[in-house]
Amino acid sequence: MDISAVNALSYEEFVNIFGNVVEKCPLITAAVWTSHPFMSINALKAEINDFIDALPESGKEGILRCHPDLAGRDLHSGALTRESQEEQARAGMGELSPAEASRMARLNEKYKERFGFPFVICARMNDKARILRELSQRLQNERAAEIARGIAEVKKICRLRLQALVLSEAPKL
Amino acid sequence: MDISAVNALSYEEFVNIFGNVVEKCPLITAAVWTSHPFMSINALKAEINDFIDALPESGKEGILRCHPDLAGRDLHSGALTRESQEEQARAGMGELSPAEASRMARLNEKYKERFGFPFVICARMNDKARILRELSQRLQNERAAEIARGIAEVKKICRLRLQALVLSEAPKL
Repeated sequence: MDISAVNALSYEEFVNIFGNVVEKCPLITAAVWTSHPFMSINALKAEINDFIDALPESGKEGILRCHPDLAGRDLHSGALTRESQEEQARAGMGELSPAEASRMARLNEKYKERFGFPFVICARMNDKARILRELSQRLQNERAAEIARGIAEVKKICRLRLQALVLSEAPKL
Repeated sequence: MDISAVNALSYEEFVNIFGNVVEKCPLITAAVWTSHPFMSINALKAEINDFIDALPESGKEGILRCHPDLAGRDLHSGALTRESQEEQARAGMGELSPAEASRMARLNEKYKERFGFPFVICARMNDKARILRELSQRLQNERAAEIARGIAEVKKICRLRLQALVLSEAPKL
């Protein structure tokens, strides 16, 4: 699917296909449709990033709070979005040893207690060892820095999800 | 559930319970959690309204685009959110005569073509005759006025969903 195929979509098709490039935030996808037609997939990605950057701090925290825990309840109950399911599985989140799983759960809880939003990291760019190390290190950050860091990870996840959709979706839509 | 019970929720419980007070926009619910504790349910509602008002015009259009058509495909396929399903059913959207259904479908399409977002109205405050009349009249509006009007309806829907949840949810959460 190239950018002309994307631009030919109705807003409903566009939101159906790209609505989860930012986890559980179809509002963002639906908002950037206002700027279509897009010059390129990169331009679409830039619109999404700009929309996120223009949100108040509470809106950025809101985006983070729409993300599931890594290796958390939703993974085990099958309640993850399709995208999260794939990303967490590839990063080995479904195959933690009992010791790793309990360490992850403990650190996730500490993180949420400290910051009021969950630890977000681009799982596709990491493996379980790095995720655990990052989680442990980022727990030491200041709150404002951690919002910025989480949002930077959201943008990486978004870029990879966009790329995957553009490659996988047939242009017949 | 009174406001102290709401304030005692974790952000995850809060988003789980109230995440759809603005249709398919848990981002908004998750964002206003930043302002908790809330003085009252009215204060929570005011935070949501303020967050919506502070969004750029594209964000407001994005909220409207997250709404399903009235008496549209999602109603017939059972793909509506629980809240929309109840609201549309009560307003008689599932029991249109063939003539009404085809008029509704035609006007919905015209509306979406003209404005680039769907017709949004608080179904609980209307019946099918008024909905059809409003849809037909609002099609004549200017775009900016129609965004403002749609968002005013979103806020009415939100207020009624909040009230219903506060009344129905047991405080044991």
